[in-house]
Amino acid sequence: MRIDIITVLPEMLDGPINTSILKRAQDRGLVEFGVHNLRDYTLDKHNRVDDYPYGGEAGMVLQIEPIDRCISALKAKRDYDEVIFTTPDGEQFVQGTANELSLKQNIIILCGHYKGVDYRVREHLITREISIGDFVLTGGELAAAIIADAVVRIIPGVIGDEQSALSDSFQDNLLAPPVYSRPAEYKGWRVPDILLSGHERKIAEWKLDQSQERTKRLRPDLLK
Amino acid sequence: MRIDIITVLPEMLDGPINTSILKRAQDRGLVEFGVHNLRDYTLDKHNRVDDYPYGGEAGMVLQIEPIDRCISALKAKRDYDEVIFTTPDGEQFVQGTANELSLKQNIIILCGHYKGVDYRVREHLITREISIGDFVLTGGELAAAIIADAVVRIIPGVIGDEQSALSDSFQDNLLAPPVYSRPAEYKGWRVPDILLSGHERKIAEWKLDQSQERTKRLRPDLLK
Repeated sequence: MRIDIITVLPEMLDGPINTSILKRAQDRGLVEFGVHNLRDYTLDKHNRVDDYPYGGEAGMVLQIEPIDRCISALKAKRDYDEVIFTTPDGEQFVQGTANELSLKQNIIILCGHYKGVDYRVREHLITREISIGDFVLTGGELAAAIIADAVVRIIPGVIGDEQSALSDSFQDNLLAPPVYSRPAEYKGWRVPDILLSGHERKIAEWKLDQSQERTKRLRPDLLK
Repeated sequence: MRIDIITVLPEMLDGPINTSILKRAQDRGLVEFGVHNLRDYTLDKHNRVDDYPYGGEAGMVLQIEPIDRCISALKAKRDYDEVIFTTPDGEQFVQGTANELSLKQNIIILCGHYKGVDYRVREHLITREISIGDFVLTGGELAAAIIADAVVRIIPGVIGDEQSALSDSFQDNLLAPPVYSRPAEYKGWRVPDILLSGHERKIAEWKLDQSQERTKRLRPDLLK
């Protein structure tokens, strides 16, 4: 899989995509990242990529021309399954979206910034608009990093222990059960006896009970 | 405001908190960040902070001792309003959460990693559990970065143009209207005439209409 990210702040993405599991996925050849500085695609002599909005709104707007030039340059090299724009009014990103995107070959993620992008970009160049939640960020970079992280970690072979990803919250519409590790007692706080019992079947039952009880209490909407 | 983040991957947070608007907020003395490597707080001679879970679950668990030592060290220096844990089964982070947290003095954000943290941490050391969405990430670092970004950008003085933050999506339960910038025509795609008219009242009406129409179509739930 290949993920190309278009941004005005490439340095913001360096840590998120070149650390830990995403770095390992690249080292193993399971994913390839391209981070593209939008300023490299402007014809403006001062490398500007934003301008005032028409109609006197406050804030600046990313212009269509450099974005179109960057996307066109990428499309000249390969076919893309999706050109995604991260925006708080897009479709809600959930685990199912991550599962689905992890099956794609090549995707572009355009990061919004400032007040947004010229709307013609969204009408003509974008195939899919995705929101990671009902909140506003300084830019789309962290949203792109979230999408990349959630998608890449479920590509087969990326996480060593497949079982670990499958038992995550949301993969079966149940919240994960509580987990505990050593020591068995810390400052008087003890691990539940059942987990120390060595009784496999009872432990499995306890975990399922806990998952169901926690889901019912904290996220009843997941059970509908 | 001060935000302390506890993590096993401090390098993942370097870009997100030291770029752009969050960097400027620090330069202006409006926010202070502390990023703490959990490994600096373990007593294990190999600097391990994780161990196998009791009961044979797959994946590794962050142990309670280094987390307790790190939080205690921070609390010895100042009082904290919240000790937040980022987890997919926490309360949903929305713009209102960001608004509320931006009024706090000092907060700690503990980033989960691997299969999670020892549940006793959540029962005894955490004051608030926050989820940024129904998806699973390789760790809580990006969730912490999202919270920091959304919170810091609305601290007065951080964004130069206050008006820009106030007209964001969600601050008034309406999605933002489309924005356009130069050129007025690109590849035959034109900016709506009304925005070029110079007629302030009509432009304001158009924007409100667009906001309402887009909200009704894309996010009717916001209007309830």
